[in-house]
Order: sequence, then structure tokens, then C-alpha cells
Amino acid sequence: MNAPLPALPKFQPKDPAFAARVRASFARQQAMVLIGARLTVVEPGCTEIALPYRPDLTQQKAYVHGGILGMIADSACGYAAYSLMPATSSLVTVEYKINILAPAKSDLVARGRVIRPGRTLTIARGDVYAADGTHVASMLQTLMMLADTPDTPEDAA
Amino acid sequence: MNAPLPALPKFQPKDPAFAARVRASFARQQAMVLIGARLTVVEPGCTEIALPYRPDLTQQKAYVHGGILGMIADSACGYAAYSLMPATSSLVTVEYKINILAPAKSDLVARGRVIRPGRTLTIARGDVYAADGTHVASMLQTLMMLADTPDTPEDAA
Amino acid sequence: MNAPLPALPKFQPKDPAFAARVRASFARQQAMVLIGARLTVVEPGCTEIALPYRPDLTQQKAYVHGGILGMIADSACGYAAYSLMPATSSLVTVEYKINILAPAKSDLVARGRVIRPGRTLTIARGDVYAADGTHVASMLQTLMMLADTPDTPEDAA
Amino acid sequence: MNAPLPALPKFQPKDPAFAARVRASFARQQAMVLIGARLTVVEPGCTEIALPYRPDLTQQKAYVHGGILGMIADSACGYAAYSLMPATSSLVTVEYKINILAPAKSDLVARGRVIRPGRTLTIARGDVYAADGTHVASMLQTLMMLADTPDTPEDAA
Repeated sequence: MNAPLPALPKFQPKDPAFAARVRASFARQQAMVLIGARLTVVEPGCTEIALPYRPDLTQQKAYVHGGILGMIADSACGYAAYSLMPATSSLVTVEYKINILAPAKSDLVARGRVIRPGRTLTIARGDVYAADGTHVASMLQTLMMLADTPDTPEDAA
Repeated sequence: MNAPLPALPKFQPKDPAFAARVRASFARQQAMVLIGARLTVVEPGCTEIALPYRPDLTQQKAYVHGGILGMIADSACGYAAYSLMPATSSLVTVEYKINILAPAKSDLVARGRVIRPGRTLTIARGDVYAADGTHVASMLQTLMMLADTPDTPEDAA
Repeated sequence: MNAPLPALPKFQPKDPAFAARVRASFARQQAMVLIGARLTVVEPGCTEIALPYRPDLTQQKAYVHGGILGMIADSACGYAAYSLMPATSSLVTVEYKINILAPAKSDLVARGRVIRPGRTLTIARGDVYAADGTHVASMLQTLMMLADTPDTPEDAA
Repeated sequence: MNAPLPALPKFQPKDPAFAARVRASFARQQAMVLIGARLTVVEPGCTEIALPYRPDLTQQKAYVHGGILGMIADSACGYAAYSLMPATSSLVTVEYKINILAPAKSDLVARGRVIRPGRTLTIARGDVYAADGTHVASMLQTLMMLADTPDTPEDAA
């Protein structure tokens, strides 16, 4: 390249206890429990989720279902974004787009990284890799912060 | 509108037994069994999947996980496309993009519709609705047909 | 379909002078002038943009460039959203995704329709059609309203 | 990160004259001439396009139109993919999704990089940067190779 282009940014979390907050929120995602996903890395603006292969996660040809790839990339991106948000905030996924690059019949890891944090909207990139390093899927996602909103069910008193 | 624009096309399936083939393929999607999704409608270029609400499908605020919305819309679009393909073909999801329009804490239905069938690629639109009619999510998806490829696991003898 | 699903919603504009406001904003889009696009329809939550074919809008095979399809669908969706916003607001495109369904060598019309208006974010769908009715492209777009922000260049005094 | 993840792959072009072929195809994109875009870098699986700021490329607030950002990222990704294809092939854009990360009122550069080359489909990532290094937009794109198809207008004899 004749013109050097910038690397992904480094982030300074607003909430020093961001990692504990992210892990507690992830633990409330019962859909992650259902599929056996674990949050393995939490850094400022970056998370990783590990998903062991199970036959009950598959589509008709025994590959991991494309929607399951979307689930772990969605959560990885969401928590990458949430790690940079204030302690009193909540967030929602606005939209995501995922390309499935290769079929997968193995344990997976999804990495989410913030590419642009914002006051209201945060944009993140997600990538899913197989155990042998194959790049399985790539995601681009938009998240919206809800200021001063609890990150727990409304009926939880 | 001062210029009328065309409605979605009507489709003629290549395989008269398309509905049975689609239902058999869906029944092999163990991920759909895991989340409790049922294929309720199969028409040429159109399917519907019903998903009863369950607490184990939720994210941290007890709404249905955005990845679960993606799963049922992905399968609904995929089977809408598969209904128009030859009996000897298989298909893969190339990519999808989903906008989440409203949070959902209810039974859901995902409708998939082909908007452009093609020899190699088919484009489909998916919409997810809540029990009260709320439009919960909208998807745009690209699928690729694999000609003369079994729609079953490779190691199934 | 054994379960009727809702049609696209009807919208009530907040600003009775929405059509004039949308047309004035469109007239400031010099990129639309450059490519020869005209705003032909403005209704609440819906607009249409007409683009006559010109050789200087094409890619290497003389079809209209995929980015040009994106431009007119982007503006059509954006102004569909803007038609529903307050007179004192401005808006920005957050993201869009477009599927190109067929190559086009003819006059085009892009129709944008709001599928979910929101306080902060609005989601719209765009469709591009050729003169013979061919469905050329389909878009899904996210827009963000900027409250109490002028919709004019900052340096315009 | 406790688990190192792979970098983007290095590519070996099938056509040793790929750079001249890509430049010749780009020169036929009259839409790029119209907006003043230049192809500045062509490497295997990677290209860059420079776009000087001009008032006639802007939207209503004098920022570069979001569709123009899409145009240069679309072409950058497309030619990144085309660089890896056989000399006798042509390609079409299947779809793309772009997030606009920051408004831009400056010269721009779009970089396209292949993230997965395939026999039929290639997936590429595009990023647009402003002159001051600001990350302006990020794209994820799907392209389809058309084997043994001329990359020139059909009526060109």
C-alpha cells in the first residue's frame, strides 16, 4: 500500500468495572446458555465467545446453523459495544449483516470488535472462526445505547 | 403513487413434491428443534415458521434474542428459496441482513418470501411478526443453490 | 397463507409542510443533480426518485453502476423517513444494504418506504425498478434523526 | 486476546496480468469518471480508489453523499475481487452493506480487500477514510464471478 491506513482504535472504558458488568449481562442471556456459548474474553471494545460444536446446533446437513453463527457474532459485537458504555446504560441491537464464508462442523469462536463508538450508536465488526482457524463468518453490526436504562428485565423488582 | 409498481411475483415450482422435500429438510434442522420452531406454511417461494415464546430464547432483558430472530428468519427465507429449486439440489445461506424493529416478548412468526429466484443465487425477504401483529424484524437474504448436491449430511450413508 | 399478516403501515406526518421541506432538501443534494435524478413523488413515509439512463452512470459493461443504484435508493429511503420527521430536524444515513437483482440499462425509478418510524431511528425499504417493470434492486436502510438540527450546510449563514 | 486469531490472507493471482486488466476495466467505468474517482492501488486481493472532494458529490448538508461513499467502496471491493479472477471472467456485485461512521467533507480513499475468494462467490470488505485518517465508512460485499464472460459491453463488437 502506498498510503498507510489506520489500525483499529484503542478504547478507554468509561466504566472501570466494565468487565464484571458485561459478564453479568451475558450470564442473563438465557439463549446463550441454551446453545452452550461461553464469554471467554472481555476487553475494552472487544469480546470473544466460544461455542463448542453440538449436533443440536445444526442445519439439515449437520453444519452449524447460519442463525447460530449470527447469534454468537451478535452477542460478541453487542458486548464489545457494551464494554465501552456507562454503567447505567443498556443497549439494543439495531441491525446486523453477516456473510457466511465457510460451512462449519467444529467448535467456534466469535470475536466482536468496536470499529466506531458513539454517543447513541456504536458500530462493531464480528468474525467467527473454526477450531482450525478457518474464517467462518463476518458481521457488521449497529447498536444503540439506551441511556439511564436498566439492563435487566423490566419486571425484575 | 402516480406510477403503479409491480407486486411480488408468483412462482411455479420446478419440483411438484417441493412441500414434502422442504418439510423433510426442515425436520433435519436440529437447531430448529432446539428452539422449538415449527414450519407452518410451505408455498411456492414462501414459508412461515412459528416460534412460541420461551424464557430460554431470551437476551439479558427477557426479550427474544436478536440472534434467535435471525435464526427463524434465516430458515424461513432459506426454505422459501428451496421450495423453488430442483429436487436434486441443496442450498447454502450466503449472507443475510436483519433490522430489529421492535423488542419481542411473545410468540413469533417468521415469513420468508423469494423476491428474485435465480439459477445460482436467490434473494429472499424475511419478516418476523409478534402475536399482536407488531412487525418485529425485517431481513434481506442471499442464498446459493448447489446443483446435484444432496441436502443431507455427507457422512449419511 | 393461513395466517394473514399486516400490510405496511399508513403514516400521519408531524409537519403539514413535509412535502415542500423534502423537496427543498432534495434540491440541495448536488449529487442528485450530478447524476440527473429527480424527486417525482413525496407522500407521508414514501418517495420516488426517477433516474434517466445515461452512459456516464455506468460500470464497465454499460449497466448502471451498482453504486448509482445505491445512491438513488439511499436518497429515496432517506426522504421517505424525512417526510415523517419534525420540521426542525435533520437526518443522517446510519447504514444500508442493497441486493442487486438484475442488471439495468434503462431509465430507473427508486421507491423508498418507511417500514418503522421511530423517535431516533427510522427503518426504510427501497426498491429500484427498470422502465419495463424489472425489479432491479432492493434495499434495507437505517436512518437517524437529529433533533433541532438544521438540514443545511453548517457554514450557510 | 488469549487466543490468537488469523490475519487476513495473502493471495496469489491466477492471472499474472491482473493489474493491467483491473485498470482497463476500471477505466471503462464511466460512473467513476463522472465523480472524479481514480484507481490508485492494485494488488492481489486489494485495491484503493481516491476521490477528491467536490461540491457536486454532496448531500443537502454539503457532506459527501452516502451513495457516493457506497460507489467508491463498491468499486474498490469489486476490483479487489476481480484481481484474483481468471483473465477470461467477468463479475457482478450481488449485494453490499455499508455503515457510515462519520460525515465527510474532504478527499477520500476507499480500500477494498478480499476476505474470502471463492470459485463462484467472493466476499470483500471495504473501508473509506478521510484525508485526516478518520474512518468514514465500512462495507461488507458479495461478488459473483461469471466464468468465460467478457468484461465489456455486449454490443461492443
